[in-house]
Amino acid sequence: MSFPVYNYEKSAAAFKRALKVIPSGIYGHQGPAEGCFVPVAAFPFFSERAKGAYFWDVDGNRFVDYMCAYGPNVLGYNDDEVDEAAAQQRAKGDCVTAPSSAMIDFADLLVDTVACADWAFFAKNGGDVTTLAVIAARAHTRRKKIVFFKGYYHGVAPWTQKIDYPGILEEDVANNIYVPWNDYDKLAEVFAHNKGEIAAVISQPYLHGNFADNVLPAEGFWQKVRALCDDAGSVLIIDDVRAGFRLDLAGSDHYFGFKADLICFCKALANGYNVSALCGQEFLRNTVSGLTYTGSYWLSAVPFAAGLACINKMKRLDLPRLLREKGSKLREGLIDTAKKHGHDLRVTGESALFYLRLADDDHGGAPSLMLHQRWIAEMVKRGVYLTNHHNHFINAALSDEDIATTVAVADEAFAAL
Amino acid sequence: MSFPVYNYEKSAAAFKRALKVIPSGIYGHQGPAEGCFVPVAAFPFFSERAKGAYFWDVDGNRFVDYMCAYGPNVLGYNDDEVDEAAAQQRAKGDCVTAPSSAMIDFADLLVDTVACADWAFFAKNGGDVTTLAVIAARAHTRRKKIVFFKGYYHGVAPWTQKIDYPGILEEDVANNIYVPWNDYDKLAEVFAHNKGEIAAVISQPYLHGNFADNVLPAEGFWQKVRALCDDAGSVLIIDDVRAGFRLDLAGSDHYFGFKADLICFCKALANGYNVSALCGQEFLRNTVSGLTYTGSYWLSAVPFAAGLACINKMKRLDLPRLLREKGSKLREGLIDTAKKHGHDLRVTGESALFYLRLADDDHGGAPSLMLHQRWIAEMVKRGVYLTNHHNHFINAALSDEDIATTVAVADEAFAAL
Repeated sequence: MSFPVYNYEKSAAAFKRALKVIPSGIYGHQGPAEGCFVPVAAFPFFSERAKGAYFWDVDGNRFVDYMCAYGPNVLGYNDDEVDEAAAQQRAKGDCVTAPSSAMIDFADLLVDTVACADWAFFAKNGGDVTTLAVIAARAHTRRKKIVFFKGYYHGVAPWTQKIDYPGILEEDVANNIYVPWNDYDKLAEVFAHNKGEIAAVISQPYLHGNFADNVLPAEGFWQKVRALCDDAGSVLIIDDVRAGFRLDLAGSDHYFGFKADLICFCKALANGYNVSALCGQEFLRNTVSGLTYTGSYWLSAVPFAAGLACINKMKRLDLPRLLREKGSKLREGLIDTAKKHGHDLRVTGESALFYLRLADDDHGGAPSLMLHQRWIAEMVKRGVYLTNHHNHFINAALSDEDIATTVAVADEAFAAL
Repeated sequence: MSFPVYNYEKSAAAFKRALKVIPSGIYGHQGPAEGCFVPVAAFPFFSERAKGAYFWDVDGNRFVDYMCAYGPNVLGYNDDEVDEAAAQQRAKGDCVTAPSSAMIDFADLLVDTVACADWAFFAKNGGDVTTLAVIAARAHTRRKKIVFFKGYYHGVAPWTQKIDYPGILEEDVANNIYVPWNDYDKLAEVFAHNKGEIAAVISQPYLHGNFADNVLPAEGFWQKVRALCDDAGSVLIIDDVRAGFRLDLAGSDHYFGFKADLICFCKALANGYNVSALCGQEFLRNTVSGLTYTGSYWLSAVPFAAGLACINKMKRLDLPRLLREKGSKLREGLIDTAKKHGHDLRVTGESALFYLRLADDDHGGAPSLMLHQRWIAEMVKRGVYLTNHHNHFINAALSDEDIATTVAVADEAFAAL
């Protein structure tokens, strides 16, 4: 079997046009500026359509897509069941002065589904709800300091950016404390040195940052963190924006055997319809009620209807088990194929959102990542969409045949190196 | 003619249900906590459907809606032309790993339409783009301080909240300077005392805050502010989230005869489909290209397709003229009716987004606003949806008959006081 190598003529032309009217042409992770696109020429810039596990670019190339729109595609693109529920709501109304009672139904379902949820608050981005969580923790504790784990990503609000990023002030991050992931001793030390001052610990359920192998929590780590927060009266915020529902429909805190005070959802919440959610425990309800927090489209009904259909379908599919099985099969296939070609492919994190790194590009120091980027490029050019230094996502529409194709493409891509 | 007085049995039951699973039941402006709903019993909590200038609540009551979902409804709810464009894009794809070229088309159209726009950047909330504007101004100038006009609203991010709001830190607002609206001398003084330190002035095109009469810019005010920013090398940011496209399709800065450096759009951009935009001048393009700023759904194609259809239709309708005519007719009708009943109704701001206040509730001091709230309640209970202390919005679907109905309801509502 031989896979044709794609060309991206129309994508390149579209990108030239984009550069005239959009800063950097495409912003964010998909922008070439962010580095996911190195070498740039291997990646398509613009898509034409999407269905199930695939998208087609403007040149007509089809990709088995392991980025899933960076997470939102969890059931498969344009899932009929979710789209039908959304269309029915749209015919009635979406963004209306008074909200639809679909908002209540959606909150009800989350409270039923998510282990730590006594209530739900809806917004639009992951960053809307991580920010709300931090404000709520500060309001509740009347304290300032927030503990982060190094390698974190909680959105792009100034408080969660880095001090050396353009336009960010020292005041924005003045109350941030950074601790190495899985380092309980260091965390305990920070709590001891900041007695009565720590409003919250905010963390993803495990370390799935960019440009580094993903790292699961050490045995007992979360239980000790939970106890530390309880003792100190600090709020434990789980940013489940990426992993949420992919590991456990009751929340990734539940998956790892502890209970968050506040948990942030976004990506897998409504299969691409625009909604995020903060869920939390009873003792924080009144605090959240007292905050000034809203946005222009935050009461829109269509994403609530889509979210209802999405969560119900995820439950019916037993989605976390499904994604784990598909992800494990893929993981094994890729590692074996790499080995066959003499390469050491590291697949880290959970199978449902795995991180890839070719580890044998070491010329007397740290791996340069160049070999990895070249391999990813050969994959993408043959129709398997991966990026270089970001975790990937499995979706429910990915078939065994797609996985077999991916492994076959990997075989050719390794051969092409 | 007599208008039946509505009851809200189902709304009240739904709200009770909402209180169990959503903090404060409904958050934001539509929440009773925010005060727009005083007296609460006069307002419906949940809507069932919407079309054109109307929405229907869960009890089946129909409202001529002057809140327009707090702005997004500009052409009329469920506008066929916009919905058709959105549906066509949805069939192809919405939230996909690689963006659709609809993003380029939409940026192109904004650059063609908006006077100060050499580029466009898309996000989801007004607050996403006011925050981006402030970060960009700080990155460009390498300065910290931002000047606000008192009575401002630029979203809910910590930097734009008030120091006495729960969970907000002094650090969040440490670099904010507040100046009275229209007070050029005070502004010039602030610039003189903070030489080389002011990154930006951020302002709505005129003062349309809550709980106060709206105030247009004084003659020559904006031109002097523009010159002051130019002299100081400070960025002039216009927050056109509420007024944008309703006054002038080229931007409200254009309407008032000056040119912003950065302009923020959201509400009227896509007739309720979820998108916001920052547009700006050429000299800020590279700065914005260098920022870390993205969100989970920010590349979604459906809102771009909706926005294209919405702006094209607004152009064809000459929307600002249309809204001005409808708004003026309503304004005159309401003022005359109030006068007939011996009341002094003040209608301030632009006709397309007018603010209402009954000014004759003065018992030896400032008006208590209670008479005003009672009048608004009588209006709402008879099918004209207004709120107490927020500006209102006109949409293109509002007919002469709707305006006549509104004036007739006002007649009964004043009589009922």
